Amino acid sequence: MGAWSMEILEQLDQQFAFVAEIGKLKGVLRQTTLGALGRAENSAEHSWHLALAAIALSEHAPAGTDINRVIAMVLIHDLVEIDAGDLFLYANPEEHARQEQAERAAADRIFAILPSEQGAALRALWDEFNERRSAEARFARAIDRLQPMLENLAAGGGTWQRHGITADQVLEKVALIEDGSPALGKYAHELITNAVTAGLLAPARDAGRAGESARPSRSGEED
Amino acid sequence: MGAWSMEILEQLDQQFAFVAEIGKLKGVLRQTTLGALGRAENSAEHSWHLALAAIALSEHAPAGTDINRVIAMVLIHDLVEIDAGDLFLYANPEEHARQEQAERAAADRIFAILPSEQGAALRALWDEFNERRSAEARFARAIDRLQPMLENLAAGGGTWQRHGITADQVLEKVALIEDGSPALGKYAHELITNAVTAGLLAPARDAGRAGESARPSRSGEED
Repeated sequence: MGAWSMEILEQLDQQFAFVAEIGKLKGVLRQTTLGALGRAENSAEHSWHLALAAIALSEHAPAGTDINRVIAMVLIHDLVEIDAGDLFLYANPEEHARQEQAERAAADRIFAILPSEQGAALRALWDEFNERRSAEARFARAIDRLQPMLENLAAGGGTWQRHGITADQVLEKVALIEDGSPALGKYAHELITNAVTAGLLAPARDAGRAGESARPSRSGEED
Repeated sequence: MGAWSMEILEQLDQQFAFVAEIGKLKGVLRQTTLGALGRAENSAEHSWHLALAAIALSEHAPAGTDINRVIAMVLIHDLVEIDAGDLFLYANPEEHARQEQAERAAADRIFAILPSEQGAALRALWDEFNERRSAEARFARAIDRLQPMLENLAAGGGTWQRHGITADQVLEKVALIEDGSPALGKYAHELITNAVTAGLLAPARDAGRAGESARPSRSGEED
């Protein structure tokens, strides 16, 4: 290769700046405890785990789902936490609203580090994930909802026990899994029933409500 | 959804077992130090970083490279370290040979947790990456070679300084980057020149050899 064209060199500089910047996600800690390691999970390794879960569970996505777009979505979905931090899934609505605003501002900054066309494409993918606008986004959200559940199970209760979460609260969140994948929703439902039986998760406060998990709204209520 | 078919339930059990098993990669520590965090990088967050670097740098892959296959490769490439551990890039050839054997045994075990067809497909992808058999594998290896370099730069020298690595040794490794992407190889070359100038990396022991980085063999010598 001869001399750089100025355009390619500028693009490389921007792309390398982006790669360096996103490394900060390794320092964003989540509420989830990794049972075997006795430490909090960070958002980078969480995102990796989601991407591989999407690959492993891809056949349970609705027909026609483009799994490569799902993988890209889960890889980038938490980048905004570099500025906004991680919010606990069971935080109150006011906290969720504040978080949403902070995450949009973060997306404005972080994706703009890339060359503009490329940054805009990733930003659009992030918006799509956030607004659950497609089958891909809904499947990605399902995976994002499922993985912490598995970590809590592996940790013998994890954040559920630490925060006094009960089965009815968890089942409400499962609605989002069903929305992305009926098969995964059903499997998650059984995992929760088993967790209650095994004493890892407290039963519903009002046992009569536990079964009727509301269909989730298009946006807003989730993490 | 009604009752499970036994086949789907068995597949889900295997897929969830795989997702749980691979979480162990978060506990495999690499030689790379994350400068800003003052701790070792683990192989799960490293793999996430590679996947996003592949997305950010995709336009520098040779024409026709399927970037989605590259992403899948880097996501799975280190799973074998769950059993085999991480080997330092600059380890001796005997250690590399031992490691290679341990990694193949690990691949036999870990991919077999999945339903057989799915496990075989991921295993083939892992073999392809390892043997650098395609443009996708060579680009993935280039990214895998590039990212630790960036971490060392960000950490003000990192493993280079800790292990007394010199510029000629790093330049030998850059041959693998050039092999996957001439543009990225050229950019890496400049980063190394700048690192020597900035005093982050010791100059070549025999300055005359520093420029001639050997073309890499098809397999064997790399991490």
